[in-house]
Amino acid sequence: MTLHEFDIIEKFFSQQSVRRSDVILGIGDDAAIVQAPQQDLILTIDTLVEGVHFLENTSAFDIGFKALAVNLSDLAAMGATPAWITLALTLPEVDENWLKDFSCGIFELAQRYNVQLIGGDLTRGPLAITIQAHGLIPHNQAIKRQGAKKDDLIYVTHTLGDAAMGLLYAQKKISINSIFEKVILTRLHRPEPRIPIGEKLRGIASAAIDISDGLVADLGHILKKSDVGAIIYVDHLPLSRALYESLSYDQRMELALSGGDDYELCFTVPPEKKKLLNFECTCIGMITDIKGLHLQSKNGRPYVLKTPGYQHF
Amino acid sequence: MTLHEFDIIEKFFSQQSVRRSDVILGIGDDAAIVQAPQQDLILTIDTLVEGVHFLENTSAFDIGFKALAVNLSDLAAMGATPAWITLALTLPEVDENWLKDFSCGIFELAQRYNVQLIGGDLTRGPLAITIQAHGLIPHNQAIKRQGAKKDDLIYVTHTLGDAAMGLLYAQKKISINSIFEKVILTRLHRPEPRIPIGEKLRGIASAAIDISDGLVADLGHILKKSDVGAIIYVDHLPLSRALYESLSYDQRMELALSGGDDYELCFTVPPEKKKLLNFECTCIGMITDIKGLHLQSKNGRPYVLKTPGYQHF
Repeated sequence: MTLHEFDIIEKFFSQQSVRRSDVILGIGDDAAIVQAPQQDLILTIDTLVEGVHFLENTSAFDIGFKALAVNLSDLAAMGATPAWITLALTLPEVDENWLKDFSCGIFELAQRYNVQLIGGDLTRGPLAITIQAHGLIPHNQAIKRQGAKKDDLIYVTHTLGDAAMGLLYAQKKISINSIFEKVILTRLHRPEPRIPIGEKLRGIASAAIDISDGLVADLGHILKKSDVGAIIYVDHLPLSRALYESLSYDQRMELALSGGDDYELCFTVPPEKKKLLNFECTCIGMITDIKGLHLQSKNGRPYVLKTPGYQHF
Repeated sequence: MTLHEFDIIEKFFSQQSVRRSDVILGIGDDAAIVQAPQQDLILTIDTLVEGVHFLENTSAFDIGFKALAVNLSDLAAMGATPAWITLALTLPEVDENWLKDFSCGIFELAQRYNVQLIGGDLTRGPLAITIQAHGLIPHNQAIKRQGAKKDDLIYVTHTLGDAAMGLLYAQKKISINSIFEKVILTRLHRPEPRIPIGEKLRGIASAAIDISDGLVADLGHILKKSDVGAIIYVDHLPLSRALYESLSYDQRMELALSGGDDYELCFTVPPEKKKLLNFECTCIGMITDIKGLHLQSKNGRPYVLKTPGYQHF
């Protein structure tokens, strides 16, 4: 049976459990209508392409989950509360099982953060998923990349390098103890957008970014936009047991510093606001007025990194 | 020279002339920030894929122009005033000339309607363009597909079938008098979103849609959503000289009724509001309480159409 566009939307994308009161008109018209609140509106759009952002054997559920996660992660990095999403889906063919799993992956995460799918577009072509996420934040409270100042402390959430290690494992480039398999692959396929932490950073963080291309590359954006430098104590980087027990020191550092796809937050905090941080995070360095990013190991010597981060082009 | 993502954005997408005062933060952070006004917000997203939505030899300027036009057309069909756009661009390679022309095509149209590009995403993969457009409209004034009532008059803007004829010509399936070449190809490659007309329809039209998949298919959505039927007088359909002088009666009807890509508006108006229409448009039929779409030719006999419209799947 061949399903047409409208049947596909009806069958797989209309059954979501989230129904927000600020959505006046959702899926099914020329456009969606939402009631704009008296807050600032935060918008971010991201595309995942097969073979570039996910391996060809990635499950449809994980593709859906991650496509939304990377967008919500951008909202988290601004301190925003997610509200609505739109989906532009390009498919080579209609595979009902794939569509069912894919939509479940999106809705699993959407439900967690009270996010409603309000519209989209379905197109035939090479597999690609574009999601735009819309978040809300009180006026002028969004956290930008610009704003880090000399002496601000640099923090990251959770642990770094796990997703990159998961990718190496999925590509069969490394072998690991089987007890780490599930956690590492979950970190790769189902990154957790740090929404609650982003919201708590309002009024505290001077700058923030989510780590999608690796710590060095992404912190670099904060430094550039803020016109400052930084020193990172590489031995302070928070690493998981999986990394400690599977890799050499240099391999661990490589993944933690330049591995992408973790979607943890990296943010800067003025020293006097440090005591306001009421959630788990790790201080990894500080902002300086000496330009550039200086990596330093425990003995005080510079640490030399080979690959600086993922470049899309 | 290989350009990186940030260089590409800087070089081709930061130079727009539109600078709206409601944009707090545009391109270059994790997400964009806009100041949401006290109006309803209208959102629409559309993808164009090479080989599906445009021919492989289509100019980059036209691809950019049309990618934006189809989105603005959705806003026009809701009666909204365009405000901001985001762009997710997937490219097989970095071609600076292509990017320059493409961005010029987008900005040409964006400037016409005071639309600002506020963010986006750049990805490597098969050529595809996804644009999301955001429009504004006073609360509860958006025009939906639902709302057409028995006895409402059915109107369309401009002429129908021109873009479909342009496509046949571009594909070398028909030959036409050279005096029509430019106008027909312009209709195909640079559709004009009917923004000013959409705005004038607020408070007048009971339902509206833009004609992307053909009149019969798109009017069908109004009928389904409004739970009504319609009669169309096929000899009242507004046709261009190009169609009249190049095609047979049945060929003309085929293109006007089921040819896609015109992006004209089709809307319904209660008879008592007909006098409020202060722009050029053509009455082509009326809404009935007999379900289905009934095509009728001048002699009162049913007109039989072969293909009902474009199906994406």
